[in-house]
Amino acid sequence: MSAAIDIDREEGLGFAPKFDASGLLTCVATDAADGAVLMVAHMNEEALRNTIATGEAWYYSRSRKALWRKGETSGQTQRVVEIRMDCDQDAVWIRVEQIGAACHTGRKSCFYRRIEGGEGGPHLVFADADRLFDPNAVYRK
Amino acid sequence: MSAAIDIDREEGLGFAPKFDASGLLTCVATDAADGAVLMVAHMNEEALRNTIATGEAWYYSRSRKALWRKGETSGQTQRVVEIRMDCDQDAVWIRVEQIGAACHTGRKSCFYRRIEGGEGGPHLVFADADRLFDPNAVYRK
Repeated sequence: MSAAIDIDREEGLGFAPKFDASGLLTCVATDAADGAVLMVAHMNEEALRNTIATGEAWYYSRSRKALWRKGETSGQTQRVVEIRMDCDQDAVWIRVEQIGAACHTGRKSCFYRRIEGGEGGPHLVFADADRLFDPNAVYRK
Repeated sequence: MSAAIDIDREEGLGFAPKFDASGLLTCVATDAADGAVLMVAHMNEEALRNTIATGEAWYYSRSRKALWRKGETSGQTQRVVEIRMDCDQDAVWIRVEQIGAACHTGRKSCFYRRIEGGEGGPHLVFADADRLFDPNAVYRK
């Protein structure tokens, strides 16, 4: 890629999302109320387009290989307050109003464990790990 | 992967980072002061280990194929306040005290443009786009 194109992509106001070899970009969703990172997921072109058009978060599931409206099964939808694009246009940040919980485990955020170092090597400690719903009840139909 | 292993990885307190086929996981860095997403980058095993051990952010540059201590060229280092692991252990969230600016363009955050929809299709609008340093001065040695 030429430097001219990079400068345009970084300094311009043209919408030019740069999808990876799998047709995806990375999306970070944060809670518009408190700034917590709720989840990191992926969007394909259609998910990004739907998110911009509808004001609700859409993603692409790499494991299910499917477009996915957040909350379509669980009811835990995300209303998008703002969408930001990063410098090289291969990642987006959405600030959302999360209905219920973002994580499939039932927690508000997927990041419910802190990494701590120590003599025996790193380990995890629960943090903000209360469940807001029972995943066995929500996903078992 | 068996369900038993997934449950362990998601509900346990064992540190078991899940690197992708390229040996990387995704890292989101947010400003500990105001919650803004500063950047999205990647860590390999060594970058993650160094970050945990030193309390400074290390990444792996896919373009330069090199381990990279944030700020080693620019001086714009990140002091890590907290590291969180996500549910399936393939992404980490670090809350940092950013010295100066996180973005190589000189802005505090890489996410200095808002995506807006509209009749002519999506376009970008600058938001929090003030430069804190001149990249031409900082990176030209």
